[in-house]
Amino acid sequence: MGRATLTISSKNYSSWSLRGWLLCKMAGIAFDEKIVDVDDPENRQELLLLSPSVRVPRLSHRDVEVWDTLAIAEYLNEIAPDAGLLPKDSKARSHCRSISGEIHSGFYNLRSALPMNIKARHEAFKIFSGARPDVARVKQIWTECLAAHGGPFLFGEPSMADAMYAPVCTRFRTYAVPLEPGLQAYCDTIFDWAPMVEWCAAAREEPDEVIELEVEF
Amino acid sequence: MGRATLTISSKNYSSWSLRGWLLCKMAGIAFDEKIVDVDDPENRQELLLLSPSVRVPRLSHRDVEVWDTLAIAEYLNEIAPDAGLLPKDSKARSHCRSISGEIHSGFYNLRSALPMNIKARHEAFKIFSGARPDVARVKQIWTECLAAHGGPFLFGEPSMADAMYAPVCTRFRTYAVPLEPGLQAYCDTIFDWAPMVEWCAAAREEPDEVIELEVEF
Repeated sequence: MGRATLTISSKNYSSWSLRGWLLCKMAGIAFDEKIVDVDDPENRQELLLLSPSVRVPRLSHRDVEVWDTLAIAEYLNEIAPDAGLLPKDSKARSHCRSISGEIHSGFYNLRSALPMNIKARHEAFKIFSGARPDVARVKQIWTECLAAHGGPFLFGEPSMADAMYAPVCTRFRTYAVPLEPGLQAYCDTIFDWAPMVEWCAAAREEPDEVIELEVEF
Repeated sequence: MGRATLTISSKNYSSWSLRGWLLCKMAGIAFDEKIVDVDDPENRQELLLLSPSVRVPRLSHRDVEVWDTLAIAEYLNEIAPDAGLLPKDSKARSHCRSISGEIHSGFYNLRSALPMNIKARHEAFKIFSGARPDVARVKQIWTECLAAHGGPFLFGEPSMADAMYAPVCTRFRTYAVPLEPGLQAYCDTIFDWAPMVEWCAAAREEPDEVIELEVEF
Protein backbone atom coordinates (compact mmCIF):
# COMPACT_ATOMS: atom_id res chain seq x y z
CA MET A 1 0.00 0.00 0.00
CA GLY A 2 2.97 2.32 -0.45
CA ARG A 3 5.63 3.41 1.96
CA ALA A 4 4.75 6.10 4.50
CA THR A 5 6.74 8.56 6.58
CA LEU A 6 5.98 9.05 10.25
CA THR A 7 7.34 12.20 11.86
CA ILE A 8 8.04 11.77 15.55
CA SER A 9 10.23 13.33 18.22
CA SER A 10 11.89 11.75 21.28
CA LYS A 11 11.26 8.06 21.88
CA ASN A 12 11.96 8.55 25.57
CA TYR A 13 9.79 11.60 26.21
CA SER A 14 7.15 11.95 23.50
CA SER A 15 4.00 10.06 24.43
CA TRP A 16 2.18 11.23 21.29
CA SER A 17 5.03 9.94 19.12
CA LEU A 18 4.77 6.56 20.81
CA ARG A 19 1.03 6.40 20.16
CA GLY A 20 1.36 7.22 16.46
CA TRP A 21 4.23 4.77 16.03
CA LEU A 22 2.34 1.90 17.71
CA LEU A 23 -0.67 2.58 15.51
CA CYS A 24 1.49 2.34 12.38
CA LYS A 25 3.06 -0.91 13.60
CA MET A 26 -0.39 -2.36 14.34
CA ALA A 27 -1.64 -1.37 10.90
CA GLY A 28 1.33 -3.15 9.32
CA ILE A 29 2.13 -0.17 7.13
CA ALA A 30 5.74 0.15 5.93
CA PHE A 31 7.11 3.47 7.11
CA ASP A 32 10.27 5.50 7.57
CA GLU A 33 10.75 7.47 10.75
CA LYS A 34 11.56 11.14 10.54
CA ILE A 35 12.86 12.33 13.88
CA VAL A 36 12.30 15.97 14.79
CA ASP A 37 14.73 17.27 17.36
CA VAL A 38 12.53 19.52 19.46
CA ASP A 39 15.61 21.06 21.09
CA ASP A 40 16.84 22.36 17.72
CA PRO A 41 16.15 26.13 17.82
CA GLU A 42 14.73 26.11 14.30
CA ASN A 43 12.28 23.34 15.12
CA ARG A 44 11.44 25.01 18.39
CA GLN A 45 10.58 28.16 16.47
CA GLU A 46 8.33 26.19 14.14
CA LEU A 47 6.77 24.36 17.06
CA LEU A 48 5.96 27.69 18.66
CA LEU A 49 4.32 28.73 15.41
CA LEU A 50 2.40 25.45 15.56
CA SER A 51 3.49 24.57 12.06
CA PRO A 52 1.88 21.33 10.90
CA SER A 53 5.25 20.42 9.38
CA VAL A 54 6.74 19.69 12.79
CA ARG A 55 3.67 18.73 14.78
CA VAL A 56 4.13 15.13 15.93
CA PRO A 57 3.08 12.54 15.20
CA ARG A 58 2.44 13.25 11.56
CA LEU A 59 1.85 10.65 8.88
CA SER A 60 2.55 11.22 5.19
CA HIS A 61 1.21 8.49 2.96
CA ARG A 62 0.60 8.83 -0.78
CA ASP A 63 -0.98 12.30 -1.10
CA VAL A 64 -2.44 12.27 2.42
CA GLU A 65 -1.09 14.24 5.39
CA VAL A 66 -2.52 13.40 8.83
CA TRP A 67 -1.21 15.10 11.94
CA ASP A 68 -3.44 14.19 14.83
CA THR A 69 -3.16 10.88 16.66
CA LEU A 70 -6.83 9.92 16.48
CA ALA A 71 -7.01 11.05 12.86
CA ILE A 72 -3.99 8.85 12.13
CA ALA A 73 -5.73 5.93 13.83
CA GLU A 74 -8.90 6.41 11.78
CA TYR A 75 -6.90 6.79 8.57
CA LEU A 76 -4.92 3.62 9.25
CA ASN A 77 -8.12 1.77 10.12
CA GLU A 78 -9.54 2.77 6.74
CA ILE A 79 -6.52 1.54 4.76
CA ALA A 80 -5.98 -1.55 6.95
CA PRO A 81 -9.49 -2.48 8.10
CA ASP A 82 -8.46 -6.01 9.12
CA ALA A 83 -5.57 -4.94 11.37
CA GLY A 84 -7.84 -4.72 14.40
CA LEU A 85 -7.24 -1.06 15.23
CA LEU A 86 -10.93 -0.89 16.07
CA PRO A 87 -13.08 -3.74 17.42
CA LYS A 88 -15.47 -5.28 14.89
CA ASP A 89 -18.45 -5.11 17.26
CA SER A 90 -20.26 -1.76 17.09
CA LYS A 91 -20.77 -1.45 20.86
CA ALA A 92 -17.14 -2.32 21.63
CA ARG A 93 -15.97 0.00 18.84
CA SER A 94 -17.83 2.95 20.36
CA HIS A 95 -16.41 2.09 23.76
CA CYS A 96 -12.92 1.90 22.29
CA ARG A 97 -13.32 5.29 20.61
CA SER A 98 -14.82 6.84 23.78
CA ILE A 99 -11.89 5.90 26.02
CA SER A 100 -9.40 6.79 23.27
CA GLY A 101 -11.07 10.19 23.03
CA GLU A 102 -10.87 10.62 26.80
CA ILE A 103 -7.10 10.22 26.91
CA HIS A 104 -6.77 12.36 23.78
CA SER A 105 -8.61 15.38 25.16
CA GLY A 106 -8.22 15.07 28.92
CA PHE A 107 -6.06 13.91 31.78
CA TYR A 108 -4.12 17.20 31.82
CA ASN A 109 -2.96 16.73 35.40
CA LEU A 110 -1.77 13.19 34.79
CA ARG A 111 0.15 14.33 31.73
CA SER A 112 1.84 17.27 33.45
CA ALA A 113 2.47 15.65 36.85
CA LEU A 114 3.75 12.31 35.48
CA PRO A 115 5.53 13.12 32.21
CA MET A 116 6.63 10.17 30.11
CA ASN A 117 10.27 9.28 30.71
CA ILE A 118 10.80 5.64 29.79
CA LYS A 119 14.39 5.51 31.09
CA ALA A 120 13.65 6.90 34.51
CA ARG A 121 12.48 5.22 37.70
CA HIS A 122 11.25 7.24 40.65
CA GLU A 123 10.33 5.14 43.66
CA ALA A 124 8.19 6.65 46.41
CA PHE A 125 7.18 9.41 44.02
CA LYS A 126 4.67 11.83 45.52
CA ILE A 127 1.79 12.20 43.09
CA PHE A 128 0.33 15.71 42.91
CA SER A 129 -3.14 15.53 44.45
CA GLY A 130 -4.67 17.06 41.32
CA ALA A 131 -3.51 14.07 39.28
CA ARG A 132 -5.02 11.44 41.57
CA PRO A 133 -8.54 11.57 40.08
CA ASP A 134 -6.91 11.05 36.67
CA VAL A 135 -5.05 8.00 37.94
CA ALA A 136 -8.29 6.67 39.46
CA ARG A 137 -10.17 7.24 36.22
CA VAL A 138 -7.53 5.38 34.18
CA LYS A 139 -7.78 2.46 36.59
CA GLN A 140 -11.57 2.47 36.26
CA ILE A 141 -11.37 2.51 32.45
CA TRP A 142 -8.91 -0.39 32.36
CA THR A 143 -10.84 -2.41 34.95
CA GLU A 144 -14.09 -2.08 32.98
CA CYS A 145 -12.46 -3.05 29.68
CA LEU A 146 -10.59 -6.03 31.10
CA ALA A 147 -13.74 -7.26 32.84
CA ALA A 148 -15.86 -6.87 29.70
CA HIS A 149 -13.41 -8.45 27.24
CA GLY A 150 -11.31 -10.75 29.41
CA GLY A 151 -7.92 -9.24 28.51
CA PRO A 152 -5.06 -9.49 27.99
CA PHE A 153 -5.45 -6.24 25.95
CA LEU A 154 -8.23 -3.74 26.68
CA PHE A 155 -10.51 -5.18 24.01
CA GLY A 156 -9.03 -8.68 23.96
CA GLU A 157 -6.72 -8.27 20.98
CA PRO A 158 -4.55 -5.14 20.58
CA SER A 159 -6.55 -2.08 19.47
CA MET A 160 -6.25 1.68 19.13
CA ALA A 161 -7.03 1.99 22.83
CA ASP A 162 -3.87 0.11 23.83
CA ALA A 163 -1.78 2.47 21.73
CA MET A 164 -3.48 5.42 23.40
CA TYR A 165 -2.91 4.11 26.95
CA ALA A 166 0.57 2.58 26.44
CA PRO A 167 2.34 5.81 27.54
CA VAL A 168 0.25 5.72 30.72
CA CYS A 169 1.61 2.22 31.46
CA THR A 170 5.15 3.61 31.23
CA ARG A 171 4.24 6.55 33.46
CA PHE A 172 2.81 4.24 36.10
CA ARG A 173 6.07 2.24 35.97
CA THR A 174 8.33 5.30 36.02
CA TYR A 175 6.59 6.86 39.01
CA ALA A 176 5.87 3.57 40.81
CA VAL A 177 2.09 4.00 40.89
CA PRO A 178 0.68 1.04 42.86
CA LEU A 179 -1.64 -1.14 40.77
CA GLU A 180 -4.03 -3.97 41.55
CA PRO A 181 -2.73 -7.33 40.16
CA GLY A 182 -5.14 -7.35 37.21
CA LEU A 183 -4.06 -3.88 36.14
CA GLN A 184 -0.38 -4.69 36.66
CA ALA A 185 -0.90 -7.74 34.43
CA TYR A 186 -2.31 -5.43 31.77
CA CYS A 187 0.75 -3.18 31.98
CA ASP A 188 3.00 -6.23 31.75
CA THR A 189 1.11 -7.29 28.61
CA ILE A 190 1.87 -3.87 27.11
CA PHE A 191 5.55 -4.03 28.12
CA ASP A 192 5.84 -7.50 26.53
CA TRP A 193 4.05 -6.46 23.34
CA ALA A 194 6.59 -6.76 20.49
CA PRO A 195 6.30 -3.18 19.12
CA MET A 196 6.47 -1.79 22.66
CA VAL A 197 9.63 -3.82 23.38
CA GLU A 198 11.17 -2.35 20.24
CA TRP A 199 10.20 1.23 21.10
CA CYS A 200 11.40 1.03 24.72
CA ALA A 201 14.76 -0.41 23.62
CA ALA A 202 15.20 2.54 21.25
CA ALA A 203 14.15 4.96 23.99
CA ARG A 204 16.80 3.59 26.32
CA GLU A 205 19.45 4.05 23.62
CA GLU A 206 18.50 7.66 23.01
CA PRO A 207 21.26 10.05 24.14
CA ASP A 208 20.47 11.81 27.39
CA GLU A 209 19.36 15.34 26.90
CA VAL A 210 21.86 18.06 27.61
CA ILE A 211 20.32 20.49 30.00
CA GLU A 212 22.01 23.85 29.93
CA LEU A 213 21.24 25.78 33.03
CA GLU A 214 21.60 29.49 33.04
CA VAL A 215 22.37 30.34 36.63
CA GLU A 216 22.63 33.86 37.90
CA PHE A 217 24.73 34.52 40.97
CA MET B 1 -32.98 4.12 13.33
CA GLY B 2 -34.35 4.40 16.85
CA ARG B 3 -34.60 7.34 19.18
CA ALA B 4 -31.45 8.41 21.03
CA THR B 5 -30.76 10.43 24.17
CA LEU B 6 -28.10 13.12 24.22
CA THR B 7 -26.89 14.25 27.62
CA ILE B 8 -25.70 17.84 27.63
CA SER B 9 -25.27 20.68 30.10
CA SER B 10 -25.61 24.44 29.62
CA LYS B 11 -26.48 25.68 26.14
CA ASN B 12 -24.87 29.02 26.92
CA TYR B 13 -21.61 27.81 28.42
CA SER B 14 -20.89 24.23 27.36
CA SER B 15 -18.92 24.14 24.12
CA TRP B 16 -18.69 20.34 24.17
CA SER B 17 -22.45 20.06 24.53
CA LEU B 18 -22.88 22.31 21.51
CA ARG B 19 -20.54 20.15 19.43
CA GLY B 20 -22.32 16.90 20.30
CA TRP B 21 -25.72 18.45 19.67
CA LEU B 22 -24.74 19.83 16.25
CA LEU B 23 -23.35 16.44 15.26
CA CYS B 24 -26.65 14.75 16.17
CA LYS B 25 -28.61 17.35 14.20
CA MET B 26 -26.33 16.86 11.19
CA ALA B 27 -26.74 13.09 11.38
CA GLY B 28 -30.51 13.52 11.36
CA ILE B 29 -30.93 11.21 14.33
CA ALA B 30 -34.06 11.67 16.45
CA PHE B 31 -33.01 12.40 20.00
CA ASP B 32 -34.19 13.62 23.36
CA GLU B 33 -32.07 16.05 25.33
CA LYS B 34 -31.16 15.24 28.89
CA ILE B 35 -29.87 18.37 30.60
CA VAL B 36 -27.40 17.93 33.42
CA ASP B 37 -27.30 20.86 35.82
CA VAL B 38 -23.61 21.11 36.62
CA ASP B 39 -24.38 23.46 39.52
CA ASP B 40 -26.42 20.77 41.26
CA PRO B 41 -24.22 19.59 44.17
CA GLU B 42 -24.96 15.93 43.43
CA ASN B 43 -23.92 16.27 39.79
CA ARG B 44 -20.91 18.30 40.78
CA GLN B 45 -19.87 15.45 43.05
CA GLU B 46 -20.23 12.98 40.20
CA LEU B 47 -18.40 15.29 37.82
CA LEU B 48 -15.51 15.45 40.28
CA LEU B 49 -15.50 11.67 40.30
CA LEU B 50 -15.49 11.83 36.50
CA SER B 51 -18.45 9.51 36.31
CA PRO B 52 -19.30 8.63 32.71
CA SER B 53 -22.95 9.04 33.68
CA VAL B 54 -22.62 12.83 33.79
CA ARG B 55 -19.78 13.43 31.36
CA VAL B 56 -21.15 15.57 28.52
CA PRO B 57 -21.89 15.16 25.76
CA ARG B 58 -22.97 11.57 26.02
CA LEU B 59 -25.06 9.70 23.48
CA SER B 60 -27.23 6.70 24.30
CA HIS B 61 -28.59 4.91 21.26
CA ARG B 62 -29.92 1.36 21.23
CA ASP B 63 -27.38 -0.55 23.38
CA VAL B 64 -24.51 1.83 22.61
CA GLU B 65 -23.12 4.46 25.01
CA VAL B 66 -20.66 7.00 23.58
CA TRP B 67 -19.26 9.79 25.74
CA ASP B 68 -16.56 11.54 23.80
CA THR B 69 -17.29 14.12 21.12
CA LEU B 70 -15.10 12.60 18.40
CA ALA B 71 -16.32 9.12 19.27
CA ILE B 72 -19.89 10.40 18.94
CA ALA B 73 -19.01 11.88 15.54
CA GLU B 74 -17.51 8.60 14.32
CA TYR B 75 -20.47 6.62 15.66
CA LEU B 76 -22.98 8.93 13.96
CA ASN B 77 -20.98 8.75 10.72
CA GLU B 78 -21.24 4.97 10.85
CA ILE B 79 -25.01 4.90 11.34
CA ALA B 80 -25.65 7.86 8.97
CA PRO B 81 -22.89 7.55 6.37
CA ASP B 82 -24.68 9.81 3.89
CA ALA B 83 -25.18 12.72 6.30
CA GLY B 84 -21.85 14.28 5.33
CA LEU B 85 -20.25 14.30 8.79
CA LEU B 86 -17.03 13.35 7.04
CA PRO B 87 -16.01 14.31 3.47
CA LYS B 88 -16.23 11.50 0.91
CA ASP B 89 -12.73 12.17 -0.45
CA SER B 90 -10.01 10.35 1.49
CA LYS B 91 -7.56 13.27 1.52
CA ALA B 92 -10.22 15.75 2.64
CA ARG B 93 -11.50 13.25 5.21
CA SER B 94 -8.05 12.96 6.81
CA HIS B 95 -7.72 16.73 6.81
CA CYS B 96 -11.14 17.04 8.42
CA ARG B 97 -10.21 14.53 11.12
CA SER B 98 -6.80 16.18 11.69
CA ILE B 99 -8.23 19.63 12.40
CA SER B 100 -11.08 18.13 14.44
CA GLY B 101 -8.47 16.29 16.49
CA GLU B 102 -6.50 19.50 16.98
CA ILE B 103 -9.40 21.36 18.56
CA HIS B 104 -10.32 18.23 20.57
CA SER B 105 -6.92 17.82 22.22
CA GLY B 106 -5.40 21.30 22.14
CA PHE B 107 -6.05 25.02 22.30
CA TYR B 108 -6.02 25.01 26.10
CA ASN B 109 -5.24 28.72 26.31
CA LEU B 110 -7.97 29.67 23.88
CA ARG B 111 -10.47 27.58 25.82
CA SER B 112 -9.54 29.00 29.22
CA ALA B 113 -8.98 32.63 28.17
CA LEU B 114 -12.09 32.92 25.97
CA PRO B 115 -14.72 30.68 27.56
CA MET B 116 -17.90 30.14 25.60
CA ASN B 117 -20.68 32.50 26.69
CA ILE B 118 -23.13 32.90 23.85
CA LYS B 119 -25.18 35.62 25.59
CA ALA B 120 -22.25 37.87 26.41
CA ARG B 121 -20.50 40.56 24.38
CA HIS B 122 -17.18 42.01 25.50
CA GLU B 123 -15.90 44.74 23.24
CA ALA B 124 -12.22 45.77 23.45
CA PHE B 125 -11.49 42.53 25.28
CA LYS B 126 -7.81 42.08 26.09
CA ILE B 127 -6.78 38.63 24.90
CA PHE B 128 -4.26 36.89 27.15
CA SER B 129 -0.99 36.73 25.21
CA GLY B 130 -0.78 32.97 25.73
CA ALA B 131 -4.01 32.53 23.76
CA ARG B 132 -2.88 34.53 20.74
CA PRO B 133 -0.98 31.68 19.02
CA ASP B 134 -4.17 29.59 19.41
CA VAL B 135 -6.23 32.31 17.74
CA ALA B 136 -3.64 32.55 14.95
CA ARG B 137 -3.68 28.80 14.45
CA VAL B 138 -7.49 28.71 14.22
CA LYS B 139 -7.35 31.44 11.59
CA GLN B 140 -4.73 29.48 9.64
CA ILE B 141 -6.81 26.29 9.77
CA TRP B 142 -9.94 28.07 8.56
CA THR B 143 -8.08 29.98 5.84
CA GLU B 144 -6.55 26.79 4.43
CA CYS B 145 -9.88 24.92 4.44
CA LEU B 146 -11.85 27.76 2.86
CA ALA B 147 -9.16 28.19 0.17
CA ALA B 148 -9.04 24.47 -0.58
CA HIS B 149 -12.79 23.85 -0.69
CA GLY B 150 -14.25 27.25 -1.56
CA GLY B 151 -16.56 27.56 1.46
CA PRO B 152 -19.04 28.43 2.71
CA PHE B 153 -18.36 25.64 5.30
CA LEU B 154 -14.83 24.38 6.02
CA PHE B 155 -15.16 21.48 3.60
CA GLY B 156 -17.81 23.01 1.35
CA GLU B 157 -20.86 21.36 2.87
CA PRO B 158 -21.30 21.13 6.69
CA SER B 159 -19.03 18.50 8.27
CA MET B 160 -17.77 17.32 11.64
CA ALA B 161 -15.16 20.08 11.54
CA ASP B 162 -17.81 22.83 11.54
CA ALA B 163 -19.39 21.31 14.64
CA MET B 164 -15.96 21.21 16.30
CA TYR B 165 -15.17 24.86 15.49
CA ALA B 166 -18.67 26.35 15.95
CA PRO B 167 -17.97 27.21 19.63
CA VAL B 168 -14.84 29.06 18.50
CA CYS B 169 -17.00 31.22 16.22
CA THR B 170 -19.13 32.19 19.22
CA ARG B 171 -16.01 32.95 21.26
CA PHE B 172 -14.63 35.21 18.56
CA ARG B 173 -17.97 37.04 18.53
CA THR B 174 -18.27 37.26 22.31
CA TYR B 175 -14.77 38.65 22.77
CA ALA B 176 -14.76 40.76 19.58
CA VAL B 177 -11.75 39.05 18.00
CA PRO B 178 -10.99 40.89 14.73
CA LEU B 179 -11.32 38.67 11.66
CA GLU B 180 -10.41 39.05 8.01
CA PRO B 181 -13.54 39.33 5.80
CA GLY B 182 -13.30 35.74 4.54
CA LEU B 183 -13.12 34.36 8.07
CA GLN B 184 -15.92 36.65 9.27
CA ALA B 185 -18.01 35.32 6.38
CA TYR B 186 -17.33 31.79 7.62
CA CYS B 187 -18.48 32.72 11.13
CA ASP B 188 -21.60 34.33 9.67
CA THR B 189 -22.28 31.08 7.79
CA ILE B 190 -22.11 29.22 11.09
CA PHE B 191 -24.37 31.73 12.85
CA ASP B 192 -26.91 31.44 10.01
CA TRP B 193 -26.79 27.62 9.98
CA ALA B 194 -30.25 26.37 11.03
CA PRO B 195 -29.16 24.11 13.93
CA MET B 196 -26.87 26.87 15.23
CA VAL B 197 -29.71 29.41 15.12
CA GLU B 198 -31.83 26.99 17.15
CA TRP B 199 -29.08 26.36 19.73
CA CYS B 200 -28.20 30.03 20.19
CA ALA B 201 -31.87 30.96 20.67
CA ALA B 202 -32.12 28.32 23.42
CA ALA B 203 -28.86 29.57 24.96
CA ARG B 204 -30.23 33.11 25.16
CA GLU B 205 -33.36 31.82 26.92
CA GLU B 206 -31.39 29.91 29.52
CA PRO B 207 -31.79 31.44 33.00
CA ASP B 208 -28.78 33.41 34.12
CA GLU B 209 -26.68 31.57 36.61
CA VAL B 210 -26.96 32.61 40.21
CA ILE B 211 -23.53 33.37 41.51
CA GLU B 212 -23.35 33.28 45.27
CA LEU B 213 -20.39 35.18 46.51
CA GLU B 214 -19.00 34.47 49.90
CA VAL B 215 -17.42 37.70 50.98
CA GLU B 216 -15.41 38.06 54.14
CA PHE B 217 -15.10 41.45 55.74
